Amino acid sequence: MDSYAERLASGIRDSQTPTLVGLDPRFESLPETITAGLSKNNPIEVAGAFQVFCKGVIDVVAPLVSVVKPQAAFFEQVGVPGMVALAETISYAREKGLLVILDGKRNDIGSTAAAYADAYLGPPETSAWGADALTVSPYLGEDSLTPFVEVAERRGAGIFVLVKTSNPGGGLFQDIENDQGAVYQHVARQVESLNVSSIGASGYGSIGAVVGATYPEQLGELRRVMPHAWFLVPGYGAQGGTAADVAGAFDEKGLGAIVNNSRGIIFAHAKTPYRERFGNANWQGAVEAATRDMIESLRAETPAGQLTR
Amino acid sequence: MDSYAERLASGIRDSQTPTLVGLDPRFESLPETITAGLSKNNPIEVAGAFQVFCKGVIDVVAPLVSVVKPQAAFFEQVGVPGMVALAETISYAREKGLLVILDGKRNDIGSTAAAYADAYLGPPETSAWGADALTVSPYLGEDSLTPFVEVAERRGAGIFVLVKTSNPGGGLFQDIENDQGAVYQHVARQVESLNVSSIGASGYGSIGAVVGATYPEQLGELRRVMPHAWFLVPGYGAQGGTAADVAGAFDEKGLGAIVNNSRGIIFAHAKTPYRERFGNANWQGAVEAATRDMIESLRAETPAGQLTR
Repeated sequence: MDSYAERLASGIRDSQTPTLVGLDPRFESLPETITAGLSKNNPIEVAGAFQVFCKGVIDVVAPLVSVVKPQAAFFEQVGVPGMVALAETISYAREKGLLVILDGKRNDIGSTAAAYADAYLGPPETSAWGADALTVSPYLGEDSLTPFVEVAERRGAGIFVLVKTSNPGGGLFQDIENDQGAVYQHVARQVESLNVSSIGASGYGSIGAVVGATYPEQLGELRRVMPHAWFLVPGYGAQGGTAADVAGAFDEKGLGAIVNNSRGIIFAHAKTPYRERFGNANWQGAVEAATRDMIESLRAETPAGQLTR
Repeated sequence: MDSYAERLASGIRDSQTPTLVGLDPRFESLPETITAGLSKNNPIEVAGAFQVFCKGVIDVVAPLVSVVKPQAAFFEQVGVPGMVALAETISYAREKGLLVILDGKRNDIGSTAAAYADAYLGPPETSAWGADALTVSPYLGEDSLTPFVEVAERRGAGIFVLVKTSNPGGGLFQDIENDQGAVYQHVARQVESLNVSSIGASGYGSIGAVVGATYPEQLGELRRVMPHAWFLVPGYGAQGGTAADVAGAFDEKGLGAIVNNSRGIIFAHAKTPYRERFGNANWQGAVEAATRDMIESLRAETPAGQLTR
């Protein structure tokens, strides 16, 4: 099996866009055409709505992008039925040829980290959940990351380590600085060093980094610190990041980064200008238009315009 | 409803021990009397064995201790059937009067953090999973912790924030130091400040800290930095921490800390001296003996000997 880095590079080249669609189902925000008659207090009904909705989003975006990112928290919020919906969503996305990054921000030490890695990373023949990649938190240090790295490389999967996050309070601990730089720079150097053994033809390895779109300056700086790491860039759209803000995350061929948009795409039916054009009844039209608009913005304002097949 | 801190204090006083039993089911380590005839490749069978085993442990320890800690990773490793076993385990522990700390090391930002908090914290009437507390990673900063704090206080639940972990590589980022101290000390001060609004009669609040038994010196230091935080102390037993090592985590009344032991208790049937005395056939006898031995050690060598009802 090809490495995760190479599969991601192929997917981005084939779809000609680094747009990553985040699947963050929230019952209150789903189109009324899906939730009509359902109760938010009934987990089976909520999980069923999540499944219908996520499959509906996947149907629209699968021909346009190459990667989706389900957010584990929203599925976990619905208990066991939510976990069934998560499993079905991952499986459906795979069937449609999409790469799946599970956003679970997991972490632990030693054999417990290995259990998380085994749970999530790799195709369904090897892992319970069948994700191509998983987001991972670095607080527990090197011996909490290496079990993920080993399983990822063995199964052609990847991880994205939190480096510099997009939230306003992210700097509280990430920006603590000693004479070798801030915490996030230490984490970045660790990510780069974990990539050495898996760098492929694309120039990237299987150990990526989460770097927020809300810090355009650090995006460019971290690109230089981690020349071999794929960046997962959150914070575009709802959190205020623009296409121009994320330009520094890419290399000159338009590779090296995927830019996430969750609410701005999946709930476009409730947002200007899509609400006026599509509304509830044609929520999938709104998803498609918002996805196409993001693809166009990234093409116009970032090196993603240089992508070649 | 009483606050989590007060419920934890009552539980520890009632059981007269701060022993916390970690529920880390691993198929390979389960007693053969449970796994005989089952396949490790069949998730339904593995999850079924986890459920039987965890309930069997709970039956033994419920009269002896007041808190158990299921490790989410091992249940997640088995996919949806594993999540069913987790839900059943939490529910059974509650029925038996135990407090449940789910060890999931969750974290995210804003409304996603709120979704995790809503998922796990509080009784089954309010949350999908029904845990009394959840372990939480701090890397994402203050606005990633406050949603957990708000939900915890509202529902009489608690969180334990990773501060200084027990693994050998934990210092890589946690020990990075500026002129206000190391990262773990910054996190500790944040934990203490989050406790201000929930300090009860016991002198503790609902926002606890994970501080490893493998760093006895820092345990005492962090006790002083976080006088109002419950400590969850991992690393006892299998990871090398002794009762004497954890003494600094307690206040003079024997409150303020719970000490976790997972493998040393639940898989005692496979370890000297319990293997020789009990073996596979009476694995529950081994669990009971190991639990009683730990209770005795903590009583003899730490301020937990001062606990009064």
